[in-house]
Amino acid sequence: MFNAKVKSEVLKGIIDVTSPLVNEVKFNITNKGISLRAVDPAHVAMVDLHVNSKAFEEYKAENMELGIDMNKLGGIMRLSSSGDTVSLEFDDESNRLIVKIGNLVRRMGLIDTAGMPDPKMPNLDLPGKVIIRASELNQGVRASEAVSDHLALTINKDNFELCAEGDTDTVNLKLPKDLLIELNASSKCRSLFSIDYFSNMIKSIKGEDPITIMLGNDNPTRVEFDIADKKGHVTYLLAPRIESD
Amino acid sequence: MFNAKVKSEVLKGIIDVTSPLVNEVKFNITNKGISLRAVDPAHVAMVDLHVNSKAFEEYKAENMELGIDMNKLGGIMRLSSSGDTVSLEFDDESNRLIVKIGNLVRRMGLIDTAGMPDPKMPNLDLPGKVIIRASELNQGVRASEAVSDHLALTINKDNFELCAEGDTDTVNLKLPKDLLIELNASSKCRSLFSIDYFSNMIKSIKGEDPITIMLGNDNPTRVEFDIADKKGHVTYLLAPRIESD
Amino acid sequence: MFNAKVKSEVLKGIIDVTSPLVNEVKFNITNKGISLRAVDPAHVAMVDLHVNSKAFEEYKAENMELGIDMNKLGGIMRLSSSGDTVSLEFDDESNRLIVKIGNLVRRMGLIDTAGMPDPKMPNLDLPGKVIIRASELNQGVRASEAVSDHLALTINKDNFELCAEGDTDTVNLKLPKDLLIELNASSKCRSLFSIDYFSNMIKSIKGEDPITIMLGNDNPTRVEFDIADKKGHVTYLLAPRIESD
Repeated sequence: MFNAKVKSEVLKGIIDVTSPLVNEVKFNITNKGISLRAVDPAHVAMVDLHVNSKAFEEYKAENMELGIDMNKLGGIMRLSSSGDTVSLEFDDESNRLIVKIGNLVRRMGLIDTAGMPDPKMPNLDLPGKVIIRASELNQGVRASEAVSDHLALTINKDNFELCAEGDTDTVNLKLPKDLLIELNASSKCRSLFSIDYFSNMIKSIKGEDPITIMLGNDNPTRVEFDIADKKGHVTYLLAPRIESD
Repeated sequence: MFNAKVKSEVLKGIIDVTSPLVNEVKFNITNKGISLRAVDPAHVAMVDLHVNSKAFEEYKAENMELGIDMNKLGGIMRLSSSGDTVSLEFDDESNRLIVKIGNLVRRMGLIDTAGMPDPKMPNLDLPGKVIIRASELNQGVRASEAVSDHLALTINKDNFELCAEGDTDTVNLKLPKDLLIELNASSKCRSLFSIDYFSNMIKSIKGEDPITIMLGNDNPTRVEFDIADKKGHVTYLLAPRIESD
Repeated sequence: MFNAKVKSEVLKGIIDVTSPLVNEVKFNITNKGISLRAVDPAHVAMVDLHVNSKAFEEYKAENMELGIDMNKLGGIMRLSSSGDTVSLEFDDESNRLIVKIGNLVRRMGLIDTAGMPDPKMPNLDLPGKVIIRASELNQGVRASEAVSDHLALTINKDNFELCAEGDTDTVNLKLPKDLLIELNASSKCRSLFSIDYFSNMIKSIKGEDPITIMLGNDNPTRVEFDIADKKGHVTYLLAPRIESD
């Protein structure tokens, strides 16, 4: 059983953080809320997402799994306006998710979850931590896209740095401790990442919203932020690229 | 003789309802106003349009026909702003339509109306009638586009229903009598239509504006609404698609 | 040595007037300001631009040349918002232009100016002069694009005229003296130009801003306007097209 009502923007937020990485997703539904964990087809990135039942206007659920096509759900949600309440209901008999926006009813076919993996979140020791405003990070990533396809993130004792190097051009964003919300590193941490993936991971979060980045040396990065008015939380893991020089 | 001045948005309205179905159109001009009736190249839909001379700022005309390329006229009109007054004048000598926007003068070649048909509006007995707000209908049609290429319209004694069925997904918009502006049906009427065509017919009308839909059983639908601040009226006919099951 | 700070919109203005004609440009930098002069690859048009050092928030420079890829510079500038101050600095050691927007640092490779030409501005006797509002001229040029690929400009004693002739359609914009900011012609001047080029030359200037057009008979036109809050000036030369009839 799953029967919930939610503001359009909360559901759109879940779609925005998930769909750039994976299309077919397994929603794990309990009476506490919805969670999902998925790895992208190339096994480079993982998204882990929890939304508390308190993020919903109404919420009734027993433990169950729903196999969702995020593009399809995204298509339906584009018909809703900000402020609309969307109703979600699992129809056991037909194995459909019934999405209602106003008087509109869309019955959506579900994906068989039998073959879908349950990826484990690896236990990583990432000694560097920085909390940065979304707009600053976004500008650095967008600038990097013009000069390279990978970027280096570095956390020092005193600053956070984003670097991208092309053949003739470089991009550098260096933020001292006082321009960051938080900085924590006992020693220097530096890893290299795909700009495409990193850009997809942060593009749904805007403005002054804080993003937490955990970093090691040539290790994956963990990127986290809140969604759904702090009643939901997203964690990404992104595998490093190996420095060629 | 034809010499008229009209607000840009009235002329744009005529283009918006006509050009999605037909490009080459014969304007029938009298001292009462302008009318046109045309069938789309695939003979699936007909558009019939009247604009009263009162919709014009100035209007002087004798009976005549003008063969208009709607894309061309649309292109000129994109250079005008909302609120601009556009002057239209037929130049007998050169067989051109002279379109003036501010100080700009465009002399537009006309299409020979000799070979253009005068389609008759078929006399249809369509027992079902519903008047619906444009935004509701639009949302239903847009949702349908994602699951199928045809939709079924049904008028019952108590409600109006729009349905589209795909392989796994369905869209359903069911509006009870009290959510409609008007509902009139002695018995159930149901017909199937191409979503593409139906979408083109209603996409120029927005918001709370009322659309009248007349329906029979496996019969064409007649869709009507006002344009030009109620000084003009559009009637579409759309042939049904045959149910395959 | 070159070290300057400038409002984002001033630098974007320089890019907007230059990049539709040429991509690789030599900035001639002196302590008075920045100038450039370039001919498009087809040798049909020339752009000549001066921006006074007073257009900058800070400006320190010795005589030097910088070979700039305008597309690259335009890409960086899209990351800046209106009102942002952008810092430009030439780094002698690495031969890079260092562009700073907020905390973001882009080091940009420069083009070798050794092979870049120093085109001379030809001395032209153009007896017709008109000063026209940008919006009027823009509307005429955009209308012309729909009917032809060249347009004729004419200055008479009493009016300015823009004409484009297609096979069946024509566009005509005729402005009498009192609708122009200035008109000066001892005799009739008329020349024909490519609409593509002419459109590219004027599209960055909007609204009520005045554009000066100098005209002869089958001669190039000189088009001029101010940029950077009147602390900069642009001159275009455009070669005429030969009338075929």
